[in-house]
Amino acid sequence: MNTKRVTVDGARLWQRHEDMAQIGATPAGGVNRQALSIEDSEARRLILDWSDARNYQAATDAIGNLYISRTGRRLDLPPVLTGSHLDSQPAGGRYDGTYGVLAGFEVLEALDDRRIVTDRTITLVAWMNEEGSRFAPVTMGSGVFAGALSLASVLATSDTAGTSVAEALASLEETQSALLPQVAVPFPVAAYVEAHIEQGPILERLGKRIGAVSGIQGLRWFEITVQGRTAHAGTTPHADRQDALVAAIDLIGDLRQRSQYGGEQVRFTIGRMIVGPGSPNTVPNSVVFTIDLRHPDRRVLEEISQSIATACQHPRGACTIALREMLNSPPVTFDPRVVKSVRLAAADRGYPWLDLVSGATHDAKHLANLCPTGMIFIPCRDGVSHHEAESITREDATAGAQILADIVLELAMTAD
Amino acid sequence: MNTKRVTVDGARLWQRHEDMAQIGATPAGGVNRQALSIEDSEARRLILDWSDARNYQAATDAIGNLYISRTGRRLDLPPVLTGSHLDSQPAGGRYDGTYGVLAGFEVLEALDDRRIVTDRTITLVAWMNEEGSRFAPVTMGSGVFAGALSLASVLATSDTAGTSVAEALASLEETQSALLPQVAVPFPVAAYVEAHIEQGPILERLGKRIGAVSGIQGLRWFEITVQGRTAHAGTTPHADRQDALVAAIDLIGDLRQRSQYGGEQVRFTIGRMIVGPGSPNTVPNSVVFTIDLRHPDRRVLEEISQSIATACQHPRGACTIALREMLNSPPVTFDPRVVKSVRLAAADRGYPWLDLVSGATHDAKHLANLCPTGMIFIPCRDGVSHHEAESITREDATAGAQILADIVLELAMTAD
Repeated sequence: MNTKRVTVDGARLWQRHEDMAQIGATPAGGVNRQALSIEDSEARRLILDWSDARNYQAATDAIGNLYISRTGRRLDLPPVLTGSHLDSQPAGGRYDGTYGVLAGFEVLEALDDRRIVTDRTITLVAWMNEEGSRFAPVTMGSGVFAGALSLASVLATSDTAGTSVAEALASLEETQSALLPQVAVPFPVAAYVEAHIEQGPILERLGKRIGAVSGIQGLRWFEITVQGRTAHAGTTPHADRQDALVAAIDLIGDLRQRSQYGGEQVRFTIGRMIVGPGSPNTVPNSVVFTIDLRHPDRRVLEEISQSIATACQHPRGACTIALREMLNSPPVTFDPRVVKSVRLAAADRGYPWLDLVSGATHDAKHLANLCPTGMIFIPCRDGVSHHEAESITREDATAGAQILADIVLELAMTAD
Repeated sequence: MNTKRVTVDGARLWQRHEDMAQIGATPAGGVNRQALSIEDSEARRLILDWSDARNYQAATDAIGNLYISRTGRRLDLPPVLTGSHLDSQPAGGRYDGTYGVLAGFEVLEALDDRRIVTDRTITLVAWMNEEGSRFAPVTMGSGVFAGALSLASVLATSDTAGTSVAEALASLEETQSALLPQVAVPFPVAAYVEAHIEQGPILERLGKRIGAVSGIQGLRWFEITVQGRTAHAGTTPHADRQDALVAAIDLIGDLRQRSQYGGEQVRFTIGRMIVGPGSPNTVPNSVVFTIDLRHPDRRVLEEISQSIATACQHPRGACTIALREMLNSPPVTFDPRVVKSVRLAAADRGYPWLDLVSGATHDAKHLANLCPTGMIFIPCRDGVSHHEAESITREDATAGAQILADIVLELAMTAD
């Protein structure tokens, strides 16, 4: 453990959240700050203003990630990277992503307060479009940074209004990014640590303040299309129907059963289901639904996925079934040294902590392929996230930022 | 049986169908001729042109039903009414409704051919908005005619574009109806007979040409709302979820089971189902679905409806259930004398026939409350209706029109 100590300022951190929550504020207390929107641009402007007041170095890259660096004394060494994202879901909460960015900024300021000069530069990053709600897929900025996504294809991706990422970035640059130097990515990174709200109920339920995140569970998305035939609801005997909804419900029961092989750790969610043509007196001819399947164990995830594919190989009743895989994101294991540092720092500060696997995906997933990576979770009320009611306590926010500061300082002082 | 014989002209009737199918024709061979649309207006214009050429008397009423009368010699007696509707589903077939109007028009023309003067006036009617796809509910024109629907509330009903029935009627009148005398409704009617395609597979399957329709099964519509809570699909353990779709599927299984009490004659259809918020990685917080429930027996229909209400009285898992009845249309029994006339006429003409209960609702439902009423069904291919692929044969079309002509003539010559 490094002998220097840094202490974060919980009041300042909380005020930063209050200020940031004004941007894209919704009447229900959340935020609507979708990627590359005017609100996202304002949020970037605000943190750049804070950065300018501290004389940090701001930069961007070809995909619109925002970097704010507190320069270290050893410019020959790769920086320590910390951060998260400022974009939100359309009816999102104030803390998802934002907390990791503001906690990172607090680390820089807390180092200033103690006049600590680190060996390595510490770079705060706000990744572009983590949420994927305006432009799909999720974790676009970190995906391009790590080479998991192609810059060209991401720039060509359009939102439902037909605006491409490239166009949205260009209008963003008009307001601010043209002023910033653009760095080539990926640049070498010594380590990446991301603080984030848990987005689940575990820490709160068990009375823990810090989650030492050991990895991210694997995620696969499937889209299943059940095709039948429309018929008149009044005149067509049940035996003559090709009712796509009846077949879909039967199939879903089977799939749910098959997913249980994964035990308590499996997450099986049907979040989208479109029934067509959608007239009360017409037997449905099509049902399209998604499966979001998650498990920390790559092998179990693969076995359930295979089982889902098997269940979709044959017609169900008189309806045909088609399966399309939309996403395959394998489980991620974080660097054991970083995870251990989180545990030790929490123990050192006297915060109750817990080892956790992240249920949600995060930008850290991509960074884990480039450098030693870890995450710090803090509790959120009732596990609610992606919702305007998302809430955290000031004490937890301070604790998480303190652990982040401790680890970042440790990583930035270990020049090798 | 009346001694006068009338013979319909199948070629002429078929050509009228070909001509009418041009109006609102869709690329897939169906029609899009929704109520009070420009296409509906053109269809009315076409039949008015044919009527003018025959010197029939055209009229309308406050709700836009269209009447074409071939005057009888006894103006002191109520007319015999026949007809159906010219409006279609958005992607509808050429024959649903249109067949009954054109078969009725053929009856008038066939009487002209033989220079038969009937005692009673025979009035052909094209009811306004039977389909209910642009303006809900269904059978609007006949419902107002029979007093089942209030004229004022129907005129105030708007389509999804915000156009009211009153406004749509006004623009229709600009093109044609201002030229027509307007009659008060209901006017006395001696009897009502409607020819229609079966919209089901029974007649075709059993090799029958004519359906003697004994009534219309009862119909009830329910809308059920399942309310849960959104949650993150990756982070929320299954036990903590209030997944509205899981609850809805469980409830639907129960409801389907309960409906089976009605035996083979029950029709239980979930035609519309909206799952919200509809994001693949968000646990759904709401499912709204409709039930279209039908049975010929009023008592059975009531018992199943009660059972559905019972199933919805308690929460399902962690989700609340709300039930709303949208429509309650009791079973209709047609006049036994009219039904018997259909059977006798079919036997007389040597057409294989069958007693049937209509699975679909029809304008005849409302007329049955005012006067002796019956319906004649002809087969449609594969039972397909409310679909552009809807198809009938020329031979069946001719046979149905012939039976209609025989019965209408009989009713119009029985002055009492």
